[in-house]
Amino acid sequence: SDTTSATFRSIYEKGSSTPSPYDGTDSFPRRHLGPTPKNVEEMLKDLKESDLDSFIAKVVPDNVLIRRSLKVQPLKGFTESEMLADLARIAEKNDLVKPLIGKGFYGTIIPPVILRNLLENPGWYTSYTPYQPEVSQGRLESLLNFQTVISDLTGLPVANASLLDESSAAAEAMILSFTSLKSKKPKYFVDSNIHEQTLAVLKSRAHTLNIEVVVADLTTDEGFATLQENKDQLCGAMVQYPATDGSIKTFKAYSRIAELVHSVKGLYAVASDLMALTLLHAPSKFGADIVFGSSQRFGVPLGYGGPHAAFFSVVESLQRKIPGRIVGVSKDRLGNNALRLALQTREQHIKRERATSNICTAQALLANIAANYVVYHGIEGLRNISKRIHGFTTLLANSINESSNYRVLNEKWFDTLSVDVGSADEFIAKALSKNFNVFKVNSSTIQLSLDETVTKDELTTLISLFTGLSEVQLPETLPSFYEEWTRQDDILTNEVLRTHRSETSMLRYLYNLQKKDISLADSMISLGSCTMKLNATVEMMPISWPKFANIHPFAPKDQVKGYTELIVELEKDLADITGFHSTTLQPNSGAQGEYTGLSVIAKYFESKGEAHRNIVLIPVSAHGTNPASAAMAGLKVVPIKCLKDGSLDLQDLETKASKHAKNLAAMMVTYPSTYGLFEPGIIDAINIIHNHGGQVYLDGANMNAQVGLTSPGDLGADVCHLNLHKTFAIPHGGGGPGVGPICVKEHLTPFLPSHPIISTTNQTEQSINPVVAAPFGSASILPISYAYIKMMGGSNLQYSSIIAILNANYMVAKLKNHYEILFTGGDDKYCGHEFIIDLRPFKKFGIEAIDVAKRLQDYGFHAPTMSFPIPGTLMVEPTESEYKEELDRFIDSMISIREEIRKVENGETDGAILHNSPHNLKDIISTSDAEWSQRGYTREEAAYPLPFLKEQKTWPTVSRVDDTYGDMNLLCTCPSVEEVAASQ
Amino acid sequence: SDTTSATFRSIYEKGSSTPSPYDGTDSFPRRHLGPTPKNVEEMLKDLKESDLDSFIAKVVPDNVLIRRSLKVQPLKGFTESEMLADLARIAEKNDLVKPLIGKGFYGTIIPPVILRNLLENPGWYTSYTPYQPEVSQGRLESLLNFQTVISDLTGLPVANASLLDESSAAAEAMILSFTSLKSKKPKYFVDSNIHEQTLAVLKSRAHTLNIEVVVADLTTDEGFATLQENKDQLCGAMVQYPATDGSIKTFKAYSRIAELVHSVKGLYAVASDLMALTLLHAPSKFGADIVFGSSQRFGVPLGYGGPHAAFFSVVESLQRKIPGRIVGVSKDRLGNNALRLALQTREQHIKRERATSNICTAQALLANIAANYVVYHGIEGLRNISKRIHGFTTLLANSINESSNYRVLNEKWFDTLSVDVGSADEFIAKALSKNFNVFKVNSSTIQLSLDETVTKDELTTLISLFTGLSEVQLPETLPSFYEEWTRQDDILTNEVLRTHRSETSMLRYLYNLQKKDISLADSMISLGSCTMKLNATVEMMPISWPKFANIHPFAPKDQVKGYTELIVELEKDLADITGFHSTTLQPNSGAQGEYTGLSVIAKYFESKGEAHRNIVLIPVSAHGTNPASAAMAGLKVVPIKCLKDGSLDLQDLETKASKHAKNLAAMMVTYPSTYGLFEPGIIDAINIIHNHGGQVYLDGANMNAQVGLTSPGDLGADVCHLNLHKTFAIPHGGGGPGVGPICVKEHLTPFLPSHPIISTTNQTEQSINPVVAAPFGSASILPISYAYIKMMGGSNLQYSSIIAILNANYMVAKLKNHYEILFTGGDDKYCGHEFIIDLRPFKKFGIEAIDVAKRLQDYGFHAPTMSFPIPGTLMVEPTESEYKEELDRFIDSMISIREEIRKVENGETDGAILHNSPHNLKDIISTSDAEWSQRGYTREEAAYPLPFLKEQKTWPTVSRVDDTYGDMNLLCTCPSVEEVAASQ
Repeated sequence: SDTTSATFRSIYEKGSSTPSPYDGTDSFPRRHLGPTPKNVEEMLKDLKESDLDSFIAKVVPDNVLIRRSLKVQPLKGFTESEMLADLARIAEKNDLVKPLIGKGFYGTIIPPVILRNLLENPGWYTSYTPYQPEVSQGRLESLLNFQTVISDLTGLPVANASLLDESSAAAEAMILSFTSLKSKKPKYFVDSNIHEQTLAVLKSRAHTLNIEVVVADLTTDEGFATLQENKDQLCGAMVQYPATDGSIKTFKAYSRIAELVHSVKGLYAVASDLMALTLLHAPSKFGADIVFGSSQRFGVPLGYGGPHAAFFSVVESLQRKIPGRIVGVSKDRLGNNALRLALQTREQHIKRERATSNICTAQALLANIAANYVVYHGIEGLRNISKRIHGFTTLLANSINESSNYRVLNEKWFDTLSVDVGSADEFIAKALSKNFNVFKVNSSTIQLSLDETVTKDELTTLISLFTGLSEVQLPETLPSFYEEWTRQDDILTNEVLRTHRSETSMLRYLYNLQKKDISLADSMISLGSCTMKLNATVEMMPISWPKFANIHPFAPKDQVKGYTELIVELEKDLADITGFHSTTLQPNSGAQGEYTGLSVIAKYFESKGEAHRNIVLIPVSAHGTNPASAAMAGLKVVPIKCLKDGSLDLQDLETKASKHAKNLAAMMVTYPSTYGLFEPGIIDAINIIHNHGGQVYLDGANMNAQVGLTSPGDLGADVCHLNLHKTFAIPHGGGGPGVGPICVKEHLTPFLPSHPIISTTNQTEQSINPVVAAPFGSASILPISYAYIKMMGGSNLQYSSIIAILNANYMVAKLKNHYEILFTGGDDKYCGHEFIIDLRPFKKFGIEAIDVAKRLQDYGFHAPTMSFPIPGTLMVEPTESEYKEELDRFIDSMISIREEIRKVENGETDGAILHNSPHNLKDIISTSDAEWSQRGYTREEAAYPLPFLKEQKTWPTVSRVDDTYGDMNLLCTCPSVEEVAASQ
Repeated sequence: SDTTSATFRSIYEKGSSTPSPYDGTDSFPRRHLGPTPKNVEEMLKDLKESDLDSFIAKVVPDNVLIRRSLKVQPLKGFTESEMLADLARIAEKNDLVKPLIGKGFYGTIIPPVILRNLLENPGWYTSYTPYQPEVSQGRLESLLNFQTVISDLTGLPVANASLLDESSAAAEAMILSFTSLKSKKPKYFVDSNIHEQTLAVLKSRAHTLNIEVVVADLTTDEGFATLQENKDQLCGAMVQYPATDGSIKTFKAYSRIAELVHSVKGLYAVASDLMALTLLHAPSKFGADIVFGSSQRFGVPLGYGGPHAAFFSVVESLQRKIPGRIVGVSKDRLGNNALRLALQTREQHIKRERATSNICTAQALLANIAANYVVYHGIEGLRNISKRIHGFTTLLANSINESSNYRVLNEKWFDTLSVDVGSADEFIAKALSKNFNVFKVNSSTIQLSLDETVTKDELTTLISLFTGLSEVQLPETLPSFYEEWTRQDDILTNEVLRTHRSETSMLRYLYNLQKKDISLADSMISLGSCTMKLNATVEMMPISWPKFANIHPFAPKDQVKGYTELIVELEKDLADITGFHSTTLQPNSGAQGEYTGLSVIAKYFESKGEAHRNIVLIPVSAHGTNPASAAMAGLKVVPIKCLKDGSLDLQDLETKASKHAKNLAAMMVTYPSTYGLFEPGIIDAINIIHNHGGQVYLDGANMNAQVGLTSPGDLGADVCHLNLHKTFAIPHGGGGPGVGPICVKEHLTPFLPSHPIISTTNQTEQSINPVVAAPFGSASILPISYAYIKMMGGSNLQYSSIIAILNANYMVAKLKNHYEILFTGGDDKYCGHEFIIDLRPFKKFGIEAIDVAKRLQDYGFHAPTMSFPIPGTLMVEPTESEYKEELDRFIDSMISIREEIRKVENGETDGAILHNSPHNLKDIISTSDAEWSQRGYTREEAAYPLPFLKEQKTWPTVSRVDDTYGDMNLLCTCPSVEEVAASQ
């Protein structure tokens, strides 16, 4: 592909490298890329380079710089209006059939005030995971609300701030049960009346950890007897309540399982439904230790399967073991309340035995929708909804039982009926003729779930459908909920859940939260390894369109031709960009992608009769998810050393590969490396692995430096994962969603994950079990990446990488006289798309990395990634979307901080301005003059160290949150390579 | 209608006064109305009232309280999802035909980043006119950008911040020409090659002011000769450039008009097109004194005619006479730059001779879209667009002339071609078969205008359509623009117009502006007489739908069945609510509605042979637009006194009505009065007028207190105007748009305004000429009011008025021990939906109303209406959408300020905290400790006088702007009743 400045100029000014005056004028690349051609010229000049082409040739090693020509169509890229028209065309190919399929996915109404001001608001969707609590109090408060809601509804005291989806949450519950017992008991009992997709995911995860999943009718006497018989071997049991067939059993049926499981120190997990729990007894009442499920139906669009936030709550004794992030209440430097991601969320995974969870991304944006749905409705509003759902369901059930030839199979229900209809296929066709989708259980049974969106007319039509009655008489009042099952406890009484009933109040609440946080709408978020690029409006708009938003993931394939076209095309484009053969879009996060990729490799070896290959080599510089994912996939981690310059120690690699050749499964390696470098040795490394029979897994976290320049496939890797929320423009959502597809070479294609209900693109007999509940993962946000790729165009995508690299190196050039920039230096040694600022030299003056990170907030900036991959450093990744003026503001801020540090070095000050940072308004305004006069710096120096801040600044709303260094030392919640290796 | 607390509770909790458990759960009234039933109970208790019903009976006089039963369907109100579905059904009835009709309305692409983050963002659309500059710097900056853009493109140094639309701007140009000459010269020459609708509006306005509009082909020798012949009688001339038929004449044709007009001290006005002006010479070059037109095609959706911002620029000598608002640069108390609505905008209308403009509302939101369209594109981007438009047009013209049987009639063009096609009807049908709308000029001529959205494929299709060629060969390059017409000056070079090219940069610019302003997303804006209620998301969503947004106002009626249904139904509902027979939705503002209503009355008398009736009685308490509108409508104002308690002096009314009985045309009166009172004498007053042969015009500014309780029709009035942007939930847009329909009794219906191209609902031979360019005014925002009315429902709408009245009286009850509340007092004397706080008693302590208004900003609140209707007061209107917690915060803030004043009364302080207010962050932070220590109050007292402010506060971004009291003494820019009367 072309990498010259001239081509960049043509793309920027004329919309394409092969411009025509007939092209539309709303071309996208110039909107996505920050610097103008003039800026690029200036920046190259600062780098003493003459052209982008020769510059890139110096950054990327010869053997790596393929200048890969992408096939992505259209090569020129769609204009913004062409893209919207094309996506509208695709959306039109999806049919809006009323989705009564249920199975964990329900129709819901997202309150419009939340739709527009949260889901569609860049102030919410572009922010990062709230690792910097001082500029994240808004979404931390919202996530705390989420936890409160979950805790109240499930009756368990500790809830996390969301997991990836219901089925992977089930797997976490199982693993928590398994690992909680010191004496590992291998059997995990799962009630047969559980969602099929959940069971499939449980099996996938159990397989790699050697847990035996036993499926039985636990709520029957027979099934319970099996449980009793196996009690010495069981680590836990799981039921679904209400069950997947809609039924609610007797209290005793649930409680005796608890008693039994507890008698052998096992854990009792209950999959449940939040809407049902507004009426039903909390699972805590019959002894649940873990309650989990999906919060989707609290206002989150179906979106063909996701993203949806799973919830997960536990009894108090498990509070330090709960997977995922927890928001906790802490104090700031001034003693005021401040929220933060609580300590235990990080510690929990650092298990000395083994890593069992690699959870990094959560579903913050979706959890926030669900939380605010509850804030807006309150318990009265929720019960209005749930009672109506149950009442409608009961009326339908009564009509079926009384006036039709059919029979409802479940005796009790909340919203779901299983009905014996003789011929399921015939009934499904009949239902479709009235525009309803129901679920086929087997040849004679269908199942349907009612939801908030069902109208009186639809109820009447449904009754007619079952009974054949042309006139339906409805009673004046709805049947009420089962008295014996009606919960009596006071829930959702927290003030914030009782206050915001009017739209005006809700609107202000959302805006007040938003104003507390830094998002990309405020300033650059230069988090290394996170690729916080533009999430363009055109990319975001389609996800709210009904024909993308209101589609059930288990809708028949012939109703979702639009989604299918988009998914297949995106899989193809991603394979093209990565140089691979095929793609699965199923994983809901990068870490889940890693697990999936390694599972595929394991399955591949299994298919070849080489199941013994279980060693994975991982450089010590790897992202913490790598070893955790390897452990999850049942592989044994062997660390590989790095050289002082940050590159792979090929000697050590050769030694280890050779030593473990017989059992070598794979190497996992990030490229460009986690140190931000295009290592020239990568191809040698890959060859070493292949020579010893291993597969190469390339971590795509840094894919944004590669697009169109080289590719994992070109480098020789066998599999890679991508983070669509990094390289491919999906917003970070304030801590999720993410999407982590994997791309593979042809020989691995047959092993890509399947789905038990809806077959995936490459599904075969050899496919691994699914890793999440929905066949295509977080399908509703795939239009974002699709639009990004299609609007940039096959001929132009490389400029995202080129400009990202240019931006990073421009910053290095400007900063290198002020700070030591690791691993760069010399005349022609450039970084990739990110670089590491070394702050360790200031430690001896009492200045830590965190002081610089927090002081940056006073300059209006979110801190870069701190202490990853190297403690005491900041890693900066500007991305291609940042424009020169913003880069310069950041550079000026860093230089200004350097001067503040210099005053400490010179003994002029004690560095209080750094140690006290960030300075929030309460500190500026409410701290007494007396105290200020002793600080050695003025309020103005604290707040407005540079003039631009008087015109634009996002203020931290609390002062420094009382955390230790270790608490900050996380990019995600995973253990280090050495820790995992040591523990195995 | 029902007015009890019990019914309110039922509506709130169960969605309706006749609830059914089958109703949807997303009912709207509880979201629109702020207080909960429990709040209402508490508030009634504070008022010592037992029920809403008895409370209302005490507020509204017996003879006024009709308890009007509304027929609005559905009575229950649609739920939010039902509303969206119904509006989608209506939208589906509009056909998306490519609109090449032109005539001042063009296809355009609103950049998505602007669509989502400005047009669809409550932070922008809910704010008020920027009369409080300290909390309005964001939109003031944006409007200043608009002025800069207009000034650059038109080549004239002074531009205003928008007018209502192109045609009414033309009228303003004409009137400015007429009034600028001391010796009134009666003839105004208008080139015949001007938009038909503009000519119609000119005639309407000329009629009432006795200006003679002479239409001639001014750019021909013949027409120019007529001009020469009449030069002693002419006050000005107007041409359109490029002309309505698309033509561009010779430079001399334009410049000699200028020379002639200037030789007799007349003014030369040019209607122009901003897109054309990016290429064409500025009209200033050939001597224009005034340039005006529409900024619609700079990103503002067609929306079936509006709202669109007109632009208006003038030569320097007219800078104090330009109509509308101008944003100017000033200084704040600390000497920093600050923007504000400049002094001259207010002064200009206070003409001692007579009022000639009643402009109040502008089109700020739309002007801001246009301004940001330019910020985003810059001059290079604009020229890419305009050159492509011209190139496409030229290719099409060449094809027609070279390869078809047809002939392009205009010799030069920018984007518009007039074509002789033999049979226009046949060609139009042929074009429609290819999904193009073109304009029928006459039986043989059609006309079409190309725009930004036309694609290469569409161009090819158009060429085929004209030529019959099945294969169209396009050249490699586009024809370039006429060299002799290409402007050479450097324009749009201002830094802000050169900076924001990337979406990220644009997004941050928009957010940075937004963060500076108070909107309803921040806190209550309790502006008396402005009714700043909720603008609900469901109401706002449909206006962006393509089938509402992309419809040309002159599209054939059979393509706009959706709009027609909505318009007719809304007209019907508004007539029902006001108790009248029919409605016109044409006027773009309340003031324009007033003018329209009075014109209708004048025409009615004319039709009865009583054209001599030209006296209009107006109470001195009237809103300033009333007398201005009367003057515009050619009526003579006679003031009516008010009594000390604020009510009408019926004695004086009887005297004046009797005295002027022979020539009595009308009384204009506001109800409830501008003092916020339900005057019991209103019916007597109306009878007096009727007894003397006059008509009664009821100003509907305070309609929000009447809905479902009484109505103008029930009171006996003959005509009223409404402000849909007050009572009916259209957002204020930061200073427009507005909609000012009028409703009339049956006898006035035949006189409602017509339109020359598209007939209006009640159009007859007797109809008055149109008042604006589009047949249905600002049609695209009518779905907002429609949805508001339909979601509240006919049975429930009265609770908007009831709760608004309750909220106001609750505040009075809480504040009356601290401030004197005018015209209330005694046990049973309540205010209506607003009340007046008297601050005059504090004047002797040096505390002015402005000090309290500005100090409120320190409490996070926008000031209420200041010094209207009574100098030295604040008028507070909370509306029904404010919830009790917010009312309490405002009350607490006012009480806290009262305590601050008390300290001055007591001699404890000098009141500096009030005089220095508002305190912006620069003052807090950058003012030295030394200076602070002399102020007598602390930073914390300045910034956080109440604890809630530490959690939520919107900061003023500049300190007090250096204005005089007189400058603040405005609700709008109009003269007082007495001033107008005295000048006549």
